[in-house]
Amino acid sequence: MKLLRIGEPGREKPAILDGNGIPRDLSSVVADIAGDTLLPETMARLEALDPSDLPELDGGRIGPCVGQVGKFICIGLNYSDHAAETGAEVPPEPVIFMKATSAICGPNDPIIIPRNSQKTDWEVELGVVIGKPAKYVSEAEALEHVAGYCVINDVSERAFQAERAGQWTKGKSCDNFGQTGPWLVTRDEVPDPQDLGMWLDVNGKRMQDGSTRTMVYGVAHVVSYLSQFFTLQPGDIISTGTPPGVGLGMKPQQFLKPGDVVELGIEGLGSQRQDVIADA
Amino acid sequence: MKLLRIGEPGREKPAILDGNGIPRDLSSVVADIAGDTLLPETMARLEALDPSDLPELDGGRIGPCVGQVGKFICIGLNYSDHAAETGAEVPPEPVIFMKATSAICGPNDPIIIPRNSQKTDWEVELGVVIGKPAKYVSEAEALEHVAGYCVINDVSERAFQAERAGQWTKGKSCDNFGQTGPWLVTRDEVPDPQDLGMWLDVNGKRMQDGSTRTMVYGVAHVVSYLSQFFTLQPGDIISTGTPPGVGLGMKPQQFLKPGDVVELGIEGLGSQRQDVIADA
Repeated sequence: MKLLRIGEPGREKPAILDGNGIPRDLSSVVADIAGDTLLPETMARLEALDPSDLPELDGGRIGPCVGQVGKFICIGLNYSDHAAETGAEVPPEPVIFMKATSAICGPNDPIIIPRNSQKTDWEVELGVVIGKPAKYVSEAEALEHVAGYCVINDVSERAFQAERAGQWTKGKSCDNFGQTGPWLVTRDEVPDPQDLGMWLDVNGKRMQDGSTRTMVYGVAHVVSYLSQFFTLQPGDIISTGTPPGVGLGMKPQQFLKPGDVVELGIEGLGSQRQDVIADA
Repeated sequence: MKLLRIGEPGREKPAILDGNGIPRDLSSVVADIAGDTLLPETMARLEALDPSDLPELDGGRIGPCVGQVGKFICIGLNYSDHAAETGAEVPPEPVIFMKATSAICGPNDPIIIPRNSQKTDWEVELGVVIGKPAKYVSEAEALEHVAGYCVINDVSERAFQAERAGQWTKGKSCDNFGQTGPWLVTRDEVPDPQDLGMWLDVNGKRMQDGSTRTMVYGVAHVVSYLSQFFTLQPGDIISTGTPPGVGLGMKPQQFLKPGDVVELGIEGLGSQRQDVIADA
């Protein structure tokens, strides 16, 4: 299934793509694509539906494909070639940090360059959406706790991240720094999350051209690893790191400016398109 | 006002303390102490109530004093003497990091030592609860965006935090690592947040004995500073750092073990009591 959310920010309705790629309104079936809706029982109920029985919900803004996200967890330096371009070593175990959930927005919502930003950068990433609580789970059972996958742009302000005193939070959490979607593609449609092509263009020029094959710590490992520290809950999102080709790694470095257009996508998970604008 | 939440985890009812310190049930007035309930309009409505008109809601577990927290933001090394005891410099601007909101629990819920932990530590902190959206606010107007204050135990696993590859997230986000409450004390009852005594005992022995007077970056500065990076939303919580006396800073270092009892409090904001237990 491809699940999505359509409507103005904070008022999105849940939807499912039908066989022709047309969104159908799920609001008579579930309140939202969020939290406990992602539990296997509810997902099985959605699987059993015939989308063509539901009203069309075409047009309108696509929101983030998951609502009310509890944790927005990121894995840093999780592609060996990206670590190299940023001058960092591949870490001996996953590096984790959090983005503010208030950074989450729709896949085609603009990238807003915050005031005083000089180094706003892009990062195409595979998002993993948790579908069942996970605590101390093994790598072998980890994927059973995954509802599905989505595209994420882990937008990052490099000066805020690295030049403004300790910890990466402030460069990762600005408003509209987490485009998520267009849809949540359920796990059954992604037989191998470690073999997905991924790409990102700025103004039509290919900047990132990678594959989840070169991820250092794969999805099952990451889910198991995180669950050793805290409970992963349905609706939590893990952004699993970016392949090479970010602006920080270019010579000379290149960052986003108002008027730029960013497009990105992952094989089988759809694509995003963002206008870059300055904050008011 | 002193606002609190009473009931089993995830099913807490909103309450207000009456003049005799007895909780009165607010569920007929607001759905929860969370999000938009904290907006000035709603708070004014609660101020106008006579709590004695409401039914008593005595007994039962006290939950965290704010529900559905969006962001749980912490300021690191924000007391000069605490920075010194951990061997760190006072940072040139606030160090910020996030705790998982899933770490938030009631003030008297146990501290759960995670599996494989050797260095679970305590930190009494002044919590600031946001009551009005804040983006690019000045220091002068910052406190208008604060609904009130509460006690927080920023429980921390020092090995997970500092010895397990990059970023502090994994040592700060374990389940039950964020005791919050007992109550949210509204801003009008805290005329000077920079003059509050704070203390923490382990097994009856005073370990932390400080005051918010020695905070490096005060509440107004921190709220203004954070709002330069992202929108603070009603119900977000900022934990503003800890004074000296944590286990990491002792010689020899001392950490929590099952059977220990931790008690902590802040002048005018109430106190907490936690049993320390091992995770199952």
